[in-house]
Amino acid sequence: MVLPSELLGKCLNRKVSLLLKDNTLLEGTLTGFDDYMNMVLEDTEERKGETVRKLGTVVLRGNNVVSISVL
Amino acid sequence: MVLPSELLGKCLNRKVSLLLKDNTLLEGTLTGFDDYMNMVLEDTEERKGETVRKLGTVVLRGNNVVSISVL
Amino acid sequence: MVLPSELLGKCLNRKVSLLLKDNTLLEGTLTGFDDYMNMVLEDTEERKGETVRKLGTVVLRGNNVVSISVL
Amino acid sequence: MVLPSELLGKCLNRKVSLLLKDNTLLEGTLTGFDDYMNMVLEDTEERKGETVRKLGTVVLRGNNVVSISVL
Amino acid sequence: MVLPSELLGKCLNRKVSLLLKDNTLLEGTLTGFDDYMNMVLEDTEERKGETVRKLGTVVLRGNNVVSISVL
Amino acid sequence: MVLPSELLGKCLNRKVSLLLKDNTLLEGTLTGFDDYMNMVLEDTEERKGETVRKLGTVVLRGNNVVSISVL
Amino acid sequence: MVLPSELLGKCLNRKVSLLLKDNTLLEGTLTGFDDYMNMVLEDTEERKGETVRKLGTVVLRGNNVVSISVL
Repeated sequence: MVLPSELLGKCLNRKVSLLLKDNTLLEGTLTGFDDYMNMVLEDTEERKGETVRKLGTVVLRGNNVVSISVL
Repeated sequence: MVLPSELLGKCLNRKVSLLLKDNTLLEGTLTGFDDYMNMVLEDTEERKGETVRKLGTVVLRGNNVVSISVL
Repeated sequence: MVLPSELLGKCLNRKVSLLLKDNTLLEGTLTGFDDYMNMVLEDTEERKGETVRKLGTVVLRGNNVVSISVL
Repeated sequence: MVLPSELLGKCLNRKVSLLLKDNTLLEGTLTGFDDYMNMVLEDTEERKGETVRKLGTVVLRGNNVVSISVL
Repeated sequence: MVLPSELLGKCLNRKVSLLLKDNTLLEGTLTGFDDYMNMVLEDTEERKGETVRKLGTVVLRGNNVVSISVL
Repeated sequence: MVLPSELLGKCLNRKVSLLLKDNTLLEGTLTGFDDYMNMVLEDTEERKGETVRKLGTVVLRGNNVVSISVL
Repeated sequence: MVLPSELLGKCLNRKVSLLLKDNTLLEGTLTGFDDYMNMVLEDTEERKGETVRKLGTVVLRGNNVVSISVL
């Protein structure tokens, strides 16, 4: 049994892909998270269809997150 | 009487199909979950209509999950 | 006075019809539920318009459920 | 001052009309409710535009309910 | 400083107009409310565009309410 | 560091502009609020596109509020 | 490990870009926030597509916020 928060702990300082509720994909290095699945990403790139935007350091509210996959 | 969390416990290390609120289907091996029905899937494949994407290890936020069926 | 949870208790091992927020109908045998109205259905069939899909054993998150009717 | 739950208590065993978030109207006899405004209706009829469906005994999740009016 | 619940207390037995999330307007006499802003209206009239419906006594779930104005 | 509730406290008896989730703008004098950001406005005017409606005293449920700006 | 709230603390008195659920972008100086990610921005500019509006001091409800990036 792997708790979701344990797996997030193992993803620290690794590249992850975050899917948001509005279908935006964020790719970046996970440097932090809390109990609400609020997250901190570094060197973040946002992908919406074909468009890529560099966002740098981003704090994400957990309730907009659908899933996190390890890259 | 089977508590929903008990049934999830029995699904550990088995293949499940997850339906998300936006109609995405995720298939993978359930390796963990918590009280909010946040879940960990391994070897995950995402199906959206005809499109299949390999996602590997994924953490899912429970509040996007509609249902879990045992494959 | 019948508490909603008492009525659910009386539905255990009986066929019920579940209406979800996205208008999907699920029919199956209710084998469990918890305080959040998360539910376990066995021998589940999903009806979306004309389409019927067999889903087997399903865990449903309560917050997608609109209503449960006894068949 | 009439607490909403007190008024619901007075509606027990009376016919009520329930408006749901998706504009469905349910008419039936209120036989129970709880603190979350989950409700039990007997001899329920669902009205969606012109269509009427007989549903019998129904448990409703409170968070889909907009309003309850006494018939 | 007027707490929102204090103002609601002063509205008891007065005519109010309630705006719901789906843009429905309800006018009626406020006879009760609770901590979740669930409300009881008497002699309620529902206005949706041009259409007016008499609803009598109505219990409203707070989470569908946008605003209450004093008439 | 200014807590959001402190800033609201400083806005008491001043004109504010409230943006709601459905894009309605409300302008009025803030006379109260609580921990859920439910608010009381006096001399309220509602702006929806070109249309302006005078609403007088209004109680607003916090969960429909997007932002409050000081006028 | 950087907690999301710690990162917000480091953003105090710096320019940030806030993305809201309806795709509005707000740029301003972050002067405060609380546990719900309600935030206070000064010298705020709202960008919706091509349109820019000056909003001055703004309180934002956390549950409309998608992400905060450091400018």
